Amino acid sequence: MNRSELINIIKQKKSFLCVGLDSDIEKLPQHLLKEEDPIFEFNKQIIDATLPYAAAYKPNTAFYESNGVKGMMSLKKTMDYLASKRNECFVIADAKRGDIGNTSKQYAKAFLSPEGDFDFDAITVAPYMGKDSVSPFFTYENKWVILLALTSNEGAADFQYFESQDVKLFEKVLTTAQQWGTKENLMFVCGATKAEKFTEIRKLAPEHFLLVPGVGAQGGSLKEVCKYGLNKDCGLLVNSSRGIIFADKSEDFAKVAGEKARELQEEMASYLK
Amino acid sequence: MNRSELINIIKQKKSFLCVGLDSDIEKLPQHLLKEEDPIFEFNKQIIDATLPYAAAYKPNTAFYESNGVKGMMSLKKTMDYLASKRNECFVIADAKRGDIGNTSKQYAKAFLSPEGDFDFDAITVAPYMGKDSVSPFFTYENKWVILLALTSNEGAADFQYFESQDVKLFEKVLTTAQQWGTKENLMFVCGATKAEKFTEIRKLAPEHFLLVPGVGAQGGSLKEVCKYGLNKDCGLLVNSSRGIIFADKSEDFAKVAGEKARELQEEMASYLK
Repeated sequence: MNRSELINIIKQKKSFLCVGLDSDIEKLPQHLLKEEDPIFEFNKQIIDATLPYAAAYKPNTAFYESNGVKGMMSLKKTMDYLASKRNECFVIADAKRGDIGNTSKQYAKAFLSPEGDFDFDAITVAPYMGKDSVSPFFTYENKWVILLALTSNEGAADFQYFESQDVKLFEKVLTTAQQWGTKENLMFVCGATKAEKFTEIRKLAPEHFLLVPGVGAQGGSLKEVCKYGLNKDCGLLVNSSRGIIFADKSEDFAKVAGEKARELQEEMASYLK
Repeated sequence: MNRSELINIIKQKKSFLCVGLDSDIEKLPQHLLKEEDPIFEFNKQIIDATLPYAAAYKPNTAFYESNGVKGMMSLKKTMDYLASKRNECFVIADAKRGDIGNTSKQYAKAFLSPEGDFDFDAITVAPYMGKDSVSPFFTYENKWVILLALTSNEGAADFQYFESQDVKLFEKVLTTAQQWGTKENLMFVCGATKAEKFTEIRKLAPEHFLLVPGVGAQGGSLKEVCKYGLNKDCGLLVNSSRGIIFADKSEDFAKVAGEKARELQEEMASYLK
């Protein structure tokens, strides 16, 4: 999906909500465990209930890999199910990959190749190994790298604020990576728990889309993120995972997830005005 | 596998060779493509031929994921095959994972849990997201984190040398992570292409094992790495992937791989004296 298609979805739905499919099998509603593939059944119902309100979905690969080969089958089924809805939503592999060029090329094939099992629109990538670990992900047309810049967790402070001559590491990532990709194929992960940093981030990356985790369970404020993070094309995808998908564990889980997504969508619509 | 067991394997085999199972399906010997699972068949023959000379194996997950669900099945079969040889070798998931704590816990389960499909001894982890992204991997007994410090690729220069008050980022990773894990459960990735850095690295991490990629196809020198990197317990696992597994593409590929592994083992034995 290219940038203008993504912006159109956001405009149509009045939403820049990304629903995180962190579908932990230990947290699924009990009644789904009798299904042949509980994770896929869960995702399918979540997608059906939230699609009118969500601009994007973001399966986190960890929650599939933790079920081994069977989990990867659940991920494949989820992607097959989303295939018929691909002009209605942007789909991100939250995989945080990155390796030497020869190897990143294989990860790019795994997650972005239209001929592969997973054909995502975008993949999250870790910057530590530098340019040749990131570049192979730019090979596929209309596919995106979403590079970690400032993450939402406590450990972000360990290295991301490491500072040289008044430049912090996450700022160096933001500026350096703009030599590798453009606003048409590169986004950055910037955590909602650091909303006060968005002014500074927007100075360094005014036009790029930002994928913003940390609203909801991790405590970030949507209002604050929008205040400092929105740009003229919206420029944000704000993720909520646990706050939507595990809001209810009864047989009504999908309905409640849809309501939670609608609440966020309505709040987002008010900021988009 | 614990530290003394690993050291015993190294002493017995007089080898600290790690064979990288970067089993790219596009590079396999042609005659294997008629097999039901060419990647598994390739790995099985490589393992049989190299086991006398290798202290460790390191499947890189990218080369399995790039074949989708089927590739993960090849990885599972490889791990099942290695299960009967687990007191003869140390097995590393070269996965370079790392995410917020909640999510890294799932990656740890995926790759280190004895109940899971993959039950590796160790996993490579990217440090960018800090302590809570790394700590969940220390949960499993006798399992290891191998944290990226100074990698073997060109892009290493983009961020790993970022310097604050005479401390480079990779040095900060080396020292900070020693507050999270011990020499019993934490190793570091230090690329062989930076052999001149090993003196400095050994000052900061004298006792930890180092996983050293970059010998062979990437141009690093085994002799140089050993000169500066060996410690009293050996303290090195030196990886070669393409230089061994793709040394020959004929029906003799495994025999040639065994010979290449033996050559490296013999060189290593001379440095261990």
